[in-house]
Amino acid sequence: MAKPLRIGMIGYGFMGRAHSNGYKRVGDFFDLEYLPVLQAVAARDAEKAQAFAERWGYGRVETDWRKLVAADDIDAIDICTPNNLHAEIAIEAAKHGKAILCEKPLSMDVAEGEKMVAAIEKAGVPNTVWYNYRRIPAVTYAKQLIDAGRLGRVFHYRAEFLQDWTISADLPQGGAALWRLDAAAAGSGVTGDLLAHCIDTALWLNGPVSDVTAMTETFVKERMHTLTGKMEPVTIDDACSFLCHFTNGSLGLFESTRYARGHKALYTFEINGEKMSLKWDLEDLHRLEVFDYSDAGPERGWKSVHVTDGDHPYMGHWWVPGLAIGYEHSFVHQVADFLEAYAKKQPAHPTFRDALETQRVCDAVLSSAKSHQWVNVNGKPVG
Amino acid sequence: MAKPLRIGMIGYGFMGRAHSNGYKRVGDFFDLEYLPVLQAVAARDAEKAQAFAERWGYGRVETDWRKLVAADDIDAIDICTPNNLHAEIAIEAAKHGKAILCEKPLSMDVAEGEKMVAAIEKAGVPNTVWYNYRRIPAVTYAKQLIDAGRLGRVFHYRAEFLQDWTISADLPQGGAALWRLDAAAAGSGVTGDLLAHCIDTALWLNGPVSDVTAMTETFVKERMHTLTGKMEPVTIDDACSFLCHFTNGSLGLFESTRYARGHKALYTFEINGEKMSLKWDLEDLHRLEVFDYSDAGPERGWKSVHVTDGDHPYMGHWWVPGLAIGYEHSFVHQVADFLEAYAKKQPAHPTFRDALETQRVCDAVLSSAKSHQWVNVNGKPVG
Amino acid sequence: MAKPLRIGMIGYGFMGRAHSNGYKRVGDFFDLEYLPVLQAVAARDAEKAQAFAERWGYGRVETDWRKLVAADDIDAIDICTPNNLHAEIAIEAAKHGKAILCEKPLSMDVAEGEKMVAAIEKAGVPNTVWYNYRRIPAVTYAKQLIDAGRLGRVFHYRAEFLQDWTISADLPQGGAALWRLDAAAAGSGVTGDLLAHCIDTALWLNGPVSDVTAMTETFVKERMHTLTGKMEPVTIDDACSFLCHFTNGSLGLFESTRYARGHKALYTFEINGEKMSLKWDLEDLHRLEVFDYSDAGPERGWKSVHVTDGDHPYMGHWWVPGLAIGYEHSFVHQVADFLEAYAKKQPAHPTFRDALETQRVCDAVLSSAKSHQWVNVNGKPVG
Amino acid sequence: MAKPLRIGMIGYGFMGRAHSNGYKRVGDFFDLEYLPVLQAVAARDAEKAQAFAERWGYGRVETDWRKLVAADDIDAIDICTPNNLHAEIAIEAAKHGKAILCEKPLSMDVAEGEKMVAAIEKAGVPNTVWYNYRRIPAVTYAKQLIDAGRLGRVFHYRAEFLQDWTISADLPQGGAALWRLDAAAAGSGVTGDLLAHCIDTALWLNGPVSDVTAMTETFVKERMHTLTGKMEPVTIDDACSFLCHFTNGSLGLFESTRYARGHKALYTFEINGEKMSLKWDLEDLHRLEVFDYSDAGPERGWKSVHVTDGDHPYMGHWWVPGLAIGYEHSFVHQVADFLEAYAKKQPAHPTFRDALETQRVCDAVLSSAKSHQWVNVNGKPVG
Repeated sequence: MAKPLRIGMIGYGFMGRAHSNGYKRVGDFFDLEYLPVLQAVAARDAEKAQAFAERWGYGRVETDWRKLVAADDIDAIDICTPNNLHAEIAIEAAKHGKAILCEKPLSMDVAEGEKMVAAIEKAGVPNTVWYNYRRIPAVTYAKQLIDAGRLGRVFHYRAEFLQDWTISADLPQGGAALWRLDAAAAGSGVTGDLLAHCIDTALWLNGPVSDVTAMTETFVKERMHTLTGKMEPVTIDDACSFLCHFTNGSLGLFESTRYARGHKALYTFEINGEKMSLKWDLEDLHRLEVFDYSDAGPERGWKSVHVTDGDHPYMGHWWVPGLAIGYEHSFVHQVADFLEAYAKKQPAHPTFRDALETQRVCDAVLSSAKSHQWVNVNGKPVG
Repeated sequence: MAKPLRIGMIGYGFMGRAHSNGYKRVGDFFDLEYLPVLQAVAARDAEKAQAFAERWGYGRVETDWRKLVAADDIDAIDICTPNNLHAEIAIEAAKHGKAILCEKPLSMDVAEGEKMVAAIEKAGVPNTVWYNYRRIPAVTYAKQLIDAGRLGRVFHYRAEFLQDWTISADLPQGGAALWRLDAAAAGSGVTGDLLAHCIDTALWLNGPVSDVTAMTETFVKERMHTLTGKMEPVTIDDACSFLCHFTNGSLGLFESTRYARGHKALYTFEINGEKMSLKWDLEDLHRLEVFDYSDAGPERGWKSVHVTDGDHPYMGHWWVPGLAIGYEHSFVHQVADFLEAYAKKQPAHPTFRDALETQRVCDAVLSSAKSHQWVNVNGKPVG
Repeated sequence: MAKPLRIGMIGYGFMGRAHSNGYKRVGDFFDLEYLPVLQAVAARDAEKAQAFAERWGYGRVETDWRKLVAADDIDAIDICTPNNLHAEIAIEAAKHGKAILCEKPLSMDVAEGEKMVAAIEKAGVPNTVWYNYRRIPAVTYAKQLIDAGRLGRVFHYRAEFLQDWTISADLPQGGAALWRLDAAAAGSGVTGDLLAHCIDTALWLNGPVSDVTAMTETFVKERMHTLTGKMEPVTIDDACSFLCHFTNGSLGLFESTRYARGHKALYTFEINGEKMSLKWDLEDLHRLEVFDYSDAGPERGWKSVHVTDGDHPYMGHWWVPGLAIGYEHSFVHQVADFLEAYAKKQPAHPTFRDALETQRVCDAVLSSAKSHQWVNVNGKPVG
Repeated sequence: MAKPLRIGMIGYGFMGRAHSNGYKRVGDFFDLEYLPVLQAVAARDAEKAQAFAERWGYGRVETDWRKLVAADDIDAIDICTPNNLHAEIAIEAAKHGKAILCEKPLSMDVAEGEKMVAAIEKAGVPNTVWYNYRRIPAVTYAKQLIDAGRLGRVFHYRAEFLQDWTISADLPQGGAALWRLDAAAAGSGVTGDLLAHCIDTALWLNGPVSDVTAMTETFVKERMHTLTGKMEPVTIDDACSFLCHFTNGSLGLFESTRYARGHKALYTFEINGEKMSLKWDLEDLHRLEVFDYSDAGPERGWKSVHVTDGDHPYMGHWWVPGLAIGYEHSFVHQVADFLEAYAKKQPAHPTFRDALETQRVCDAVLSSAKSHQWVNVNGKPVG
């Protein structure tokens, strides 16, 4: 009989759903020492919180997250609020000794992230950040190939995250639904929302970044703000791209935008090693493209590996070869991995500390875009 | 507050898991008048049934399906046994007035299927057969385009279901795990297992078939039987292909095999109409390929529609554009549709009667393969 | 200095251009003992023949092919007429000791083809039939993999040739431009025009066919005939599909049509062997898809081999890796191979005899479609 | 009867072949007032020049290009030498009033390019630079869609040119075969060789670039030099990437490398407009991917346009729909367009002046990579 990990969820939006689904499903497919219990949800809007609790089966509702964070019947706090609340909640939860699962990006900026890391490490609580794309089987499989030394020396890493949902100038900004378009709530635009995913994966697969040169753009300068009801300047970056060096000597190239007509959620990465190259694409997330230079001469080509077999990461828990799982399963996997680490009292990656490294790259990128200079990951100009 | 539909599950194998997952998840994503309750599971092996019940949360276990079928606390019977038990269970369940959800194919043959249809129609119980691929959003979207008259006159329909998992002659046959390789339990090989899916979709999208010419093959003639422990003749068809006429004047071409090296579950169909053609592929199930002849001349091409938007079938219930769902969601959708029909006292397609038409084509195919003649769907030689 | 092979071309249509281009270009890229000289062209329409000669550089023009066939300054006759003239010209050319390059299909039917083979074999003249797709590098590379035993036992061979250019009922039939739609000139419809290509490749890659069951359809029953100016019954097959057994025990499935909306010239084949599978597609002719079962477990996938390297068939004669050649190069390659065989006094495949085997399958297919019976390649009902 | 344009070719390497093929074939497929005559070839190595002349049919051979440039029987000079000779030859040819077709990149740097432009404009001679990729039908078709205003406001342009042929440290540098790896002969590495193509297309499709930030890398620091026989420092850039602003407000991202394992010649571009996006890829050069936002909601998707129809650019001159042409045809098209402009006494784009703009971007990129600063296209630091 599994032991309970009683979850206190803060927030009820898109990520609240995705995480809740992860908690509810993990026990049907994974054998674990601990299993989540949906104990309570907190949100300012009592009615919406109640509806969310009923749908997903949370036991009770709070309208003050501080109560939840302090509650005795809660083992772990899941932070699904807008970014500007992550730090305060996490630091408070750490004080109460709760395990913490924080939605990405970690924080509004590096300074805030450093405080969070200090707090949770001082408290010694289990912690993780929801960079869920690491747990898509094809991505995890890429990591396995890299860790096995299959790529040899790496020359290039490139990643893009292309969307097109904000092209219309009629789309408003801010408020519960559109806080991602308001820097006051989100910290930044595509950099923290999309590039942060690309950077997390890159650091995981290819190691640290040393320095960057970046460019940002805000294509639509003013949008109606849902809180003020007025046209207000748009404060976020609509698009951001950067070049960088990795400390392993490889070159990086990153881009994200919400103005790439035709792409809904095209997160792609490619890594070129001396002996092997890998490509992946979120819109066909069940495939990893592999080029293996050791194949015999005329037979070389990009192999499309349909990552659905029992010997692929996580897939033995699901169906049979050829039958794909989807986006949401990455959250189930992250819950499973977190619970396993929790039981073993081991770190659950990406930890807050891991996520702080991603934050450093994001801040350097935004700093470089502002100063038009190469900047290192400590925020100092280089070159 | 939703009303309960108390499920009695018979069987605990691959389909037992897929259906159970459908029942458990539907309420998190769909607003329905009725919601399933996992009341009980029946299977001969008490230990396995108990383990299954614990994992999925079934309230109790029976070792005799007759008890389950007769139980007062059960509203609907889900038949996930090998095919040779479908008829007996369904007929008995109908007598007890249970709603019935029967795994495909409906029956061992047409004669048996006709008895089943007679029994359930006499009893007037809600009924459906798990031809789940209709509910993959890209397939449902194809149906919408067809129903909207977008294709015009149809010339061709072709479908394949290619697998490669039985190529090794060392693979045994029969028993709980491999009953699909034993005609005594399965009725036929790929015809009932794979082609039946292709035929169900075809009849749904393109209407009735009139006559067929078919070919079957058993590549590996003998396999160890897990029940006898001896090499026994292989009784199933390893591969089956057929040509046919549809009553709308279009030509059909179908193939299935478990000997197509490199394909895990490549169920594909294509339909060519005068004004539009459509293609789909289970291994990339979230995409529908659409060729629209009304596009301006030089811009014509096959469009890869990533069927993940809120205005695509079922997708408004899930995540956001670009984020794919998987195989298992087709069962969630079928549960949702069944429950909706149940509440409205309407037929839930495919009904037993619908599935009997698929069975007629399967039988005609097997008959033609045996007689080397064109055969109509009533089993009579033509031509 | 290369020796001349003086070509007498009969016809000036699409194939006349493709062959002429092959003759003119081969010497720029291949080192050969013999090189073609465009000596003369024959066609009934003197003006069109003259224009053709001027464009391509033929030395002179004849309006009677018999003169060309008898001319002393001609070494080889290239037959690019409608199919109904192949036999008469070839037999006459053989009498005059000319080498013969005949456009496919060989003949109107097997009986005619047998006379042609008898004539050219009696005369002992070099001969070949323009089944040019064998010489697309990716197709030739498939042959190399098969000949090297890489596939093991073959289970399945399937091929399609899908077009959509005759869907409009307003398209007329017959005459110089549209003789392919008139059985009197073409012998058959898609069977001789498209399926013949599929069959030639199949026999080459997978060996002889033993028996077939087939279906044909004529979707548009009447078309304006350009010679009579009246609506006339359509005499050709618009679509044809068949199932077959190969003598190596594998199963075949073939389809061709000119009513597959969205496909211009989608000739595809796939062959499934125990150890390797191969796929190819004329619309992306520079790629061969290869599935190699000997790859390590989790890394298995379909490899897209971009057949443009110097160690791929023919490609060392062209550009550099990654730079594709096109459709027309298959004719250049066939000319090069013919000239090499010519110099060595060896058969140039496919010979007339090879092409007669393709004709036998075509005739069996048409016979089966008519009789609704399984028919062997000698035209006898089986089963 | 066409008028002759007598060509004097300088060089006999890869580009000498590609251009010669263009000259020889154009008359077979295009109706033109002028047609090329392969008058003479010049190269220092008499033997190799002779062999080249014989294979391609050049009338005579010179070992001193100055003689060729001065010869009365030459109308046009084609410069296929290493880059360091372009300027001297072009300026001399202009003095003699010859038309000039110069291989790309125009020059070693902007300063040299400006002298060339001044010389040819002073002389008033017809001139063009072989940025041949503009004439691949799918690329030309992209231009047509853009010129027709189909994209609306452009947000993003990105291009890559990825190769992998210099990864081995055993590959030498310099000399006739490998001058591209020696900056003394080539000016730069991938920037002038590969990125120059990307930039030419970008300026053509998306207008001028204003400023850039760039990064270069030389992965292999020393290679055996074929002229000295010793290990020498590698002077070229192995990889180069840059970010930029276009003057139309869109953002650019470019990358090229010869260290992207698995890519032979993967030149890709994508342009994202408000109403339409376009993608292209040299390794599948016959396709243009088009996303048209004006398509009805649920039917939106990327359309793969097989650019082989008679109403696609250039394709009416070749075969029939579905039958692809290859890389080399871009040169045939450029010859055809040049000859047409020549007859009409109009500029043949890209002219030397056009190509100078590409050179400006290349120089700015190299300058930025060196200074680690944003640089405008006049070479001045910005930001």
